[in-house]
Amino acid sequence: MAERKAVVLLSGGLDSATALAIARAEGFEAHALSFRYGQRHAVELEAARKVAAALGAAEHVVLDVDLRALGGSALTSDAADPAVPAVPKGRGAAEIGAGIPVTYVPARNTVFLSLALAWAETLGAADIFIGVNALDYGGYPDCRPEYIEAFQRMADLATRAGVEGKQRLMIRAPLTGMTKGEIIRRGTELGVDYSLTWSCYDPAPGGEACGACDSCALRLRGFAEAGLGDPIRYRPGSSTGR
Amino acid sequence: MAERKAVVLLSGGLDSATALAIARAEGFEAHALSFRYGQRHAVELEAARKVAAALGAAEHVVLDVDLRALGGSALTSDAADPAVPAVPKGRGAAEIGAGIPVTYVPARNTVFLSLALAWAETLGAADIFIGVNALDYGGYPDCRPEYIEAFQRMADLATRAGVEGKQRLMIRAPLTGMTKGEIIRRGTELGVDYSLTWSCYDPAPGGEACGACDSCALRLRGFAEAGLGDPIRYRPGSSTGR
Repeated sequence: MAERKAVVLLSGGLDSATALAIARAEGFEAHALSFRYGQRHAVELEAARKVAAALGAAEHVVLDVDLRALGGSALTSDAADPAVPAVPKGRGAAEIGAGIPVTYVPARNTVFLSLALAWAETLGAADIFIGVNALDYGGYPDCRPEYIEAFQRMADLATRAGVEGKQRLMIRAPLTGMTKGEIIRRGTELGVDYSLTWSCYDPAPGGEACGACDSCALRLRGFAEAGLGDPIRYRPGSSTGR
Repeated sequence: MAERKAVVLLSGGLDSATALAIARAEGFEAHALSFRYGQRHAVELEAARKVAAALGAAEHVVLDVDLRALGGSALTSDAADPAVPAVPKGRGAAEIGAGIPVTYVPARNTVFLSLALAWAETLGAADIFIGVNALDYGGYPDCRPEYIEAFQRMADLATRAGVEGKQRLMIRAPLTGMTKGEIIRRGTELGVDYSLTWSCYDPAPGGEACGACDSCALRLRGFAEAGLGDPIRYRPGSSTGR
């Protein structure tokens, strides 16, 4: 029997790498989808490429969507532009979880899930995996379970298969209720090589992670919680917990 | 008082031109959004540019989203590829309305509305106009009112303004229940110059509309119903109703 197909949103970070490993462990033929959307750092896409290959994705498509043309967010703007808010540094867990951060990209997950939906319909895939995590990213509206459920209801009305009653689309968010430490432990069990993944919002020129932005802070806390060492390189002198 | 802002999806066709005219007549500062998504014919985008200028849009952004990378649809594929289904010709209204046509682009309106949502959130706009029409395009799942309502529910959970309770997003589909003739009459009252709009799926090398594809057939039927002449050029010998 042919493997069932799934579209897996893959950012190059550790959450989506773990989501891909879960899709593969459930027996899906994984079609990995990344976006060149005006991120500050193309290193994310290189990480996604390596992760897709290492975890046996059937294919990996990088789609161009220039979200910069629509403005907004510290993550998609020119880092050299003084009008762009700086990536916050050195914040604790409570600060990271509170409110909507400047690194929020308007409607990003909606745009990404919509494009995943277009691809799923073309492939005949009924499952879309997304590595959103409600515990660490409660400040992002489009990471919450009620948002994912609403997207799925909309998707069922949007597609040919849904309308013809042939196939319900499933938006799979397997990490939703997991802590970062639980995610890292689960991925490690499934053979994820986290040295290939990338999280930092503000890397050093030499390619080391900063160890201080929200994303590094969550990552480092997760590895500490999991009782594992983070295999990536951090900027010398940063508080990497090692 | 500053005008309220709205994002208006603008394809270059007559429906979205009319939706833009309605947004302007309601007093909105209109931010028109078109997509370069791998359409067969770039003439659509040129039409959108002219329509946006003629109807006084505050700005017109053309966003690149390469839907061809995801496969599917006669509208986004290379017309010279023999594997691509041909654009159907000479079909009557009943055939056009029945089933989902080969020109259906998977999840297209979901992708377009999602990007409109991203822009609306950045602009602080609470209204998105889309010129979908359930009567003529009943075969497209993502043109039906229940789909639009589901998108709006999802959007309210997806955005910062929605989550913070500051602003409900409205997806405005003012043409939903109108016939093509009613749309053309309404647009004509509002000063839409339909000679600037483009509908044909399969234009002649000289730029004339074919007069035979589903889109031309609906357009010609609409002008006949409105009792008006269609100001665009058709291929000599086509049954243009004139």
